[in-house]
Amino acid sequence: MTATMETLGDSRELIEAALREAVARLDADTRRVVSYHLGWCDEHGVATTGNGGKAIRSALVLLAAEAVGGQASDAVPGAVAVELVHNFSLVHDDLMDGDVERRHRATVWSLWGDATAILAGDAMLSLAHEVLLESGSPHAVAAGTIVARATRELIRGQVQDLAFENRDDVTVAECIDMAAGKTGSLLAASAAIGAVLAGAPQGTVDALSAYGSHVGLAFQLIDDILGIWGRPEVTGKPVHSDLRSGKKSLPVTWAIENGRDAGHELAAWLASDSPRTDADVRHAAELVVSSGARAWAESEAERRVHLAQMALDQVHIADTHRQRLGELAHFIVDREM
Amino acid sequence: MTATMETLGDSRELIEAALREAVARLDADTRRVVSYHLGWCDEHGVATTGNGGKAIRSALVLLAAEAVGGQASDAVPGAVAVELVHNFSLVHDDLMDGDVERRHRATVWSLWGDATAILAGDAMLSLAHEVLLESGSPHAVAAGTIVARATRELIRGQVQDLAFENRDDVTVAECIDMAAGKTGSLLAASAAIGAVLAGAPQGTVDALSAYGSHVGLAFQLIDDILGIWGRPEVTGKPVHSDLRSGKKSLPVTWAIENGRDAGHELAAWLASDSPRTDADVRHAAELVVSSGARAWAESEAERRVHLAQMALDQVHIADTHRQRLGELAHFIVDREM
Repeated sequence: MTATMETLGDSRELIEAALREAVARLDADTRRVVSYHLGWCDEHGVATTGNGGKAIRSALVLLAAEAVGGQASDAVPGAVAVELVHNFSLVHDDLMDGDVERRHRATVWSLWGDATAILAGDAMLSLAHEVLLESGSPHAVAAGTIVARATRELIRGQVQDLAFENRDDVTVAECIDMAAGKTGSLLAASAAIGAVLAGAPQGTVDALSAYGSHVGLAFQLIDDILGIWGRPEVTGKPVHSDLRSGKKSLPVTWAIENGRDAGHELAAWLASDSPRTDADVRHAAELVVSSGARAWAESEAERRVHLAQMALDQVHIADTHRQRLGELAHFIVDREM
Repeated sequence: MTATMETLGDSRELIEAALREAVARLDADTRRVVSYHLGWCDEHGVATTGNGGKAIRSALVLLAAEAVGGQASDAVPGAVAVELVHNFSLVHDDLMDGDVERRHRATVWSLWGDATAILAGDAMLSLAHEVLLESGSPHAVAAGTIVARATRELIRGQVQDLAFENRDDVTVAECIDMAAGKTGSLLAASAAIGAVLAGAPQGTVDALSAYGSHVGLAFQLIDDILGIWGRPEVTGKPVHSDLRSGKKSLPVTWAIENGRDAGHELAAWLASDSPRTDADVRHAAELVVSSGARAWAESEAERRVHLAQMALDQVHIADTHRQRLGELAHFIVDREM
């Protein structure tokens, strides 16, 4: 894992400089809000360090560019763009979902209100395109097209996610389709953009896109497991958070569809209006385990990582790069509980 | 004015077909919401007609393309893009401003809630870039760059507009700067994109951009006059609407800065917390007149239209096209009270 951590660290420096240059274009108010969200300053604008996200998507852009024989520097505008699109979606999703904390800090809307969160998100989405289009890359149109399509998929996923809140009959297939939009699309786009900006042929771009898509599904499966069993000091959320909120996550949906008696009990509990006590929630978590859904989610995540690696086997990628992409996939799945 | 109305009608058909094709890409839920907002269906998805906006921006894109000797058809993706960006900003602004009606119909957020309005706006902004980038135009990068910069300006204008609500010391210069962002930027971009997609040289693009910018200021001045004196059956808003809500519009700001006794009285009334009766609001409207601010706004709008026409005189544009662009500017200023 150390090699992957180093890769993420190296690329983050390269990307952060370009990201800061891009954000500097925004009006002063929006710039401060976006800088806060990205972990560069506190809510008063005082510089801070180490509060940013993992920047996995932008690291993937650079890894993909290098994997196809290009220079990481050619792919930096793409890395900045996907990081901006990812953070646009976080700021808007936090508002829509009413989440008051992210990365152990207050969310934008909870500090500055709805309008500021809407505008900061809008600004980041638009800036993503501005950066790509002004990159001077001969592949800017292809890269921008990938960003725009992935954003459309992101939005589709969030629309589905919100609709699921009011439904009791969400299928595993629908849930996977939602995750493909909400998580898979931007990871697929990240890998594809890196390859595109490095001038890779379409077949190679498609293989990297498939790799990213599978990694995205694995990522979401692990995220859903963490949403139930992650330690609060790591996730920044209460224990069994997603069960408490009744979220139709992948393991929960699988348990209801395939979990026989345990699944039926879980479904009935989720559908009931009675308050959810700590003991209830703990029992619900046990039902997800006894239904086989936790084991399914873990093995499905492993399977997706394997599929991701197989996608790369279809095209010519040097062994060292293939290994780094494999490590990145494993890094995502082996996240700390 | 008839010629301009015809121009708007002709180009609307050309643009609407392409706009419908673009919107068809969205997921079913978002597609329905966007179609409702664009006036194509009611809130149940049943087709309707005649509820769309004036589509001035997209008409301007096509006019500009023809003015520089290009084909309107080359500029259609640009027209679709500016129409989508304009409507993205309307849907988000309606939510931020808490407006429940637009074009005599319920606004998106008031029908479907905040999350749906946020997502529908996001989808339109992203789709604008998707359409331009997939147009196949050799000028897609230049056009997309103009769209992205204009969006950044739109956002800056809305940030300022919201900040003005909590300030009593907004200057006319700040208010014009805000209007340049919120209204001028996208009209400037519309004219510039038409020219860019038709392959015009930079000097011509700049002239059309300046034209659009001046027209935008004129548009905002007239909009502000209508916000105070527009007839409710035309504007769809209560009489003296903007005074009732205490909006720091251009005429109000001018009255406070330059209106001597009448301006001071208006400022004191706006700053007071007491409820605004109909008689109060009527008196406030009289103060705007007696301060000279209404006359200023009207003559400033005329001056901007003149500046718009002068901007075109710097470059070679055939007389018929110059005349049509002049008519469009006048059409905007001579809107019905």
